[in-house]
Amino acid sequence: MDYRVLQSAADDIAFVLDKLGVGEALTRLAPFREFDTATLVQVIDEAARFSREVLAPLNAVGDREGCTWRDGEVRTPAGFADAYRQYRDAGWPSLPCDPALGGQGLPVVAQVAVQELTAGANLAWTMYPGILHGAYECVHRFGSDALRDAWLGPLVSGEWLATMALTEPGAGSDLGQIRTRAEWVGGENDTVSVTGEKIFISGGEQDLTPNIVHLVLARTPDAPAGSGGLSLFLVPKILANGERNAVRCIGIEHKMGIRGSATCSMAFEGATGYLIGKPHRGLEAMFAMMNSARLHVGASGVGLAQNAYEMAVKHAWERVQSRVPGAAANSAPIAQHPAVWRLLEGQRVAVEGARLLLYRAALAIDEAHHADTADARMKADALAALLTPVVKAMLTEQAFEGASAALQVFGGYGYIEETGIAQYLRDARIPMIYEGTNEIQAIDLMLRKVVRDDGETLRQWLAWTRTQVNDARAIATLKGFDAALAALDEWVALLPCVVALAQSSTRAALCVAGEVMRAVHGLSMAGLWAHAALAEHRAEALGDIVRDGKRRAARYWLKFELPETRRTMAIVAAQISDPETAE
Amino acid sequence: MDYRVLQSAADDIAFVLDKLGVGEALTRLAPFREFDTATLVQVIDEAARFSREVLAPLNAVGDREGCTWRDGEVRTPAGFADAYRQYRDAGWPSLPCDPALGGQGLPVVAQVAVQELTAGANLAWTMYPGILHGAYECVHRFGSDALRDAWLGPLVSGEWLATMALTEPGAGSDLGQIRTRAEWVGGENDTVSVTGEKIFISGGEQDLTPNIVHLVLARTPDAPAGSGGLSLFLVPKILANGERNAVRCIGIEHKMGIRGSATCSMAFEGATGYLIGKPHRGLEAMFAMMNSARLHVGASGVGLAQNAYEMAVKHAWERVQSRVPGAAANSAPIAQHPAVWRLLEGQRVAVEGARLLLYRAALAIDEAHHADTADARMKADALAALLTPVVKAMLTEQAFEGASAALQVFGGYGYIEETGIAQYLRDARIPMIYEGTNEIQAIDLMLRKVVRDDGETLRQWLAWTRTQVNDARAIATLKGFDAALAALDEWVALLPCVVALAQSSTRAALCVAGEVMRAVHGLSMAGLWAHAALAEHRAEALGDIVRDGKRRAARYWLKFELPETRRTMAIVAAQISDPETAE
Repeated sequence: MDYRVLQSAADDIAFVLDKLGVGEALTRLAPFREFDTATLVQVIDEAARFSREVLAPLNAVGDREGCTWRDGEVRTPAGFADAYRQYRDAGWPSLPCDPALGGQGLPVVAQVAVQELTAGANLAWTMYPGILHGAYECVHRFGSDALRDAWLGPLVSGEWLATMALTEPGAGSDLGQIRTRAEWVGGENDTVSVTGEKIFISGGEQDLTPNIVHLVLARTPDAPAGSGGLSLFLVPKILANGERNAVRCIGIEHKMGIRGSATCSMAFEGATGYLIGKPHRGLEAMFAMMNSARLHVGASGVGLAQNAYEMAVKHAWERVQSRVPGAAANSAPIAQHPAVWRLLEGQRVAVEGARLLLYRAALAIDEAHHADTADARMKADALAALLTPVVKAMLTEQAFEGASAALQVFGGYGYIEETGIAQYLRDARIPMIYEGTNEIQAIDLMLRKVVRDDGETLRQWLAWTRTQVNDARAIATLKGFDAALAALDEWVALLPCVVALAQSSTRAALCVAGEVMRAVHGLSMAGLWAHAALAEHRAEALGDIVRDGKRRAARYWLKFELPETRRTMAIVAAQISDPETAE
Repeated sequence: MDYRVLQSAADDIAFVLDKLGVGEALTRLAPFREFDTATLVQVIDEAARFSREVLAPLNAVGDREGCTWRDGEVRTPAGFADAYRQYRDAGWPSLPCDPALGGQGLPVVAQVAVQELTAGANLAWTMYPGILHGAYECVHRFGSDALRDAWLGPLVSGEWLATMALTEPGAGSDLGQIRTRAEWVGGENDTVSVTGEKIFISGGEQDLTPNIVHLVLARTPDAPAGSGGLSLFLVPKILANGERNAVRCIGIEHKMGIRGSATCSMAFEGATGYLIGKPHRGLEAMFAMMNSARLHVGASGVGLAQNAYEMAVKHAWERVQSRVPGAAANSAPIAQHPAVWRLLEGQRVAVEGARLLLYRAALAIDEAHHADTADARMKADALAALLTPVVKAMLTEQAFEGASAALQVFGGYGYIEETGIAQYLRDARIPMIYEGTNEIQAIDLMLRKVVRDDGETLRQWLAWTRTQVNDARAIATLKGFDAALAALDEWVALLPCVVALAQSSTRAALCVAGEVMRAVHGLSMAGLWAHAALAEHRAEALGDIVRDGKRRAARYWLKFELPETRRTMAIVAAQISDPETAE
């Protein structure tokens, strides 16, 4: 392959929407009847243009300059505020919002695509509007009418931005240890005075918007201990009456990456806040938007991996070193050397495969919201819940590994900051941590998504992948799927044992939660690759001119990546037959 | 395990020397008869103290300050020069040097241990003296008497430092493309005038020593094309007559890590140089020191991984979050959570396993130099040559992955630079690239170390590992080695096919060079873990009070890491049965 015919992210997303049925499935959902695939592709192309022309040029600037803090004010890197103004003016913040509120009502699929493209071009910048969508959902679904009337409009238009203020120095993965207090203020029903310190608040202070809406998890005096006693509050920087609220940024972090994103420590000093939803049900409101929030993190991973790959493949075709064995010429582009080919093709297959999974999961969220029947909605919701932790953890891990592989392609030049690939590696390290560490995702998958329903949702999903794999096996030109079927069979036999182990010793089961996640990911990919290869095969049979991209990628995946799935299954099997726990 | 009883690097090295027979094997070599293990352990303890007390406190300083370049001069970070003065005054530079030249004549094993400890504490600083030993070896073994008399003394004492000046903008992995010219200067026999530009020269300029000795690969006018036409020259910064030579630093790189190490672009503008060894045989002189140089890089990896692990394990016992399933307490140190236990124990096993391999390879180099018979020397040399690329590539990869795992243990705090673990991740990325990228190591292993002798050296080495595995299988309390034996058997059957594939299509074979390296590494580790577990078992049987460290690590490795070896073997097997090459 030559980098001059490199598939762009937008083209590949279009393939997923158009040829893999995602676009068609959306049009079967009531709110999206009018959005044909071509319309969605137009939106995506426009997001790609904005990312390329406006955001990408600011990526290195943001990293070099970082943010600066002074007396509670934060200055973002040069150009960030202007880019946000363009983003807002173009209407991007309202993309997924309710048309009744001035939104465009596009599906999660579209929103995820925009996230992939913007984050891939500039993750630090994308952090600022990245929380907007979740905050909108939270206030929209759980806020009182008064709250919605007062605060939703400027969030839909993007006039204001938002934060999620959860973490505290003593409360990271364990939100039950949150100490921030919210005291009911006499007179008004849902008004509180919030006091406490929050850390790691992305965009807690910034110079992009005149107001910032903080969603704060805090504990009321009457609350029970633990995470079940937390309530969620809306705490604005500027109150409705125009006065400054008692919340301020007391410092920003000096980070390894996403240096253009202000990671703020926030002091709430008797700040006025308003209850969102019911008291002590804060986590519920937070988790209601968790699937799409975590999917967005996974989408960032795909974007980062795509951009790192594009840089690497370009360099690999330009850099000429050493003879390729069996070739006549004394030297060749390093892309033609087997070791570099493996690095590049491995990245391409990871990125394109990630998209197959990402957009399937995004579609499931749209279906969970809008399918015609309650049963269909429930099933889609279960599938979205199952795939979300896999998307979040595996796609962010692949982004980091992809960025590292891309850096390796650059050799010594990759280690020099001016080349730009090192920034991708540094930026790509954080999505593995935030929005629930990848270890938390694996625990979530095992306990809440697999064991809780005795593996039923997973079994149904794998029945679909099995159908795909079997269909692919029937096509003579699609080779190597027999091994995928064998792996699926093996897993079906293993699954009840995983459930039983978790029921007899959760601790022993959690020792292989990471491997279970990798196995589920691998077996999902087997079906998704079969599906993609079949789609390409059918398109060609219908006379379409198609690249051999998906079929070639599927072959590569079956040969070089499926053994990784077998590796993780072997570990799970070993733990089942001889359970062991941490001392 | 509690971090308060954490095995220190020095203690673990002492275990390898004392209980695994490395120390005893050294005393069988003529020059080391007087160095009993206790003496070596004393040296290592002293290196550990120096690393901990002098170098470690400068690690963050070096990263924060970096180096500064101005008008050809380089200023290293505060404290670096003083630390070097202490290092020199304590006699560390002369450690491995010939006693006839004022050196201490210690084995490579000891030098590697010092490298592990100093690099682990401060890789950037260690880069400065890190090249000294190789330069000494090169001049000592290949230089003329006149050259040795003039330049060796100050290198042995560490009064001066040295560089290896190989890379050029157009010549990285492909040294054949070097353009730097060396013109014979009439009159003196071996004197040249060197003109050209070199990049990525570590310590090319610095303020630690008054003179710097550059070893420069260049091409004479009469040289054939390609790497076979390169000659090696000694080009000092200050000539013997005290004049400044025509070599200057024209800039330094802004790097992702090892920021305290000056990575210099050097301009040679008719600089006076002196031939080392024979004309056009420069690579030979360079490669003569390659095994120990690459082993040193692997040793750096072990040191980095150890220090990252120590930071992570300390944090994991101090950070209290969430209930552990099955435990009564509402929260626990995160070290007790299964996911964190896997991260930590995986790191510990990687680090301790790396040491088993590293010191076995170092011993082989000492035996290759000093064994009694030519046959023993030749065999040891072949083993050292086989293990060196594995040590270099796998131990540097493990360092990067270990640093990333350590960062993950820190969660969000890991991403903040002040915590210090992010620096380990950034620093640990470069050893995978320099001294021959890890891809080059895999090619070297496959073509020069395995295929060239039809797999004979590898077969002999694996016969030793098989003996260890079999001995371990005979001990009832050492479980899980059956699977290791099965993997060894499978590989023995596969090896001739690998050789045959490489002979029929080098290009197809190179597509799985990385997997072959991983398989060789895994099968080596199977034997080394068996050896270590047996040693611990025997020590206990003799009444020694021993930790259950090696046996527990071996169990962990067999259960959680051996499947990785099977994975790579499956890929190699697939490539053999259906060979494929990069397009």
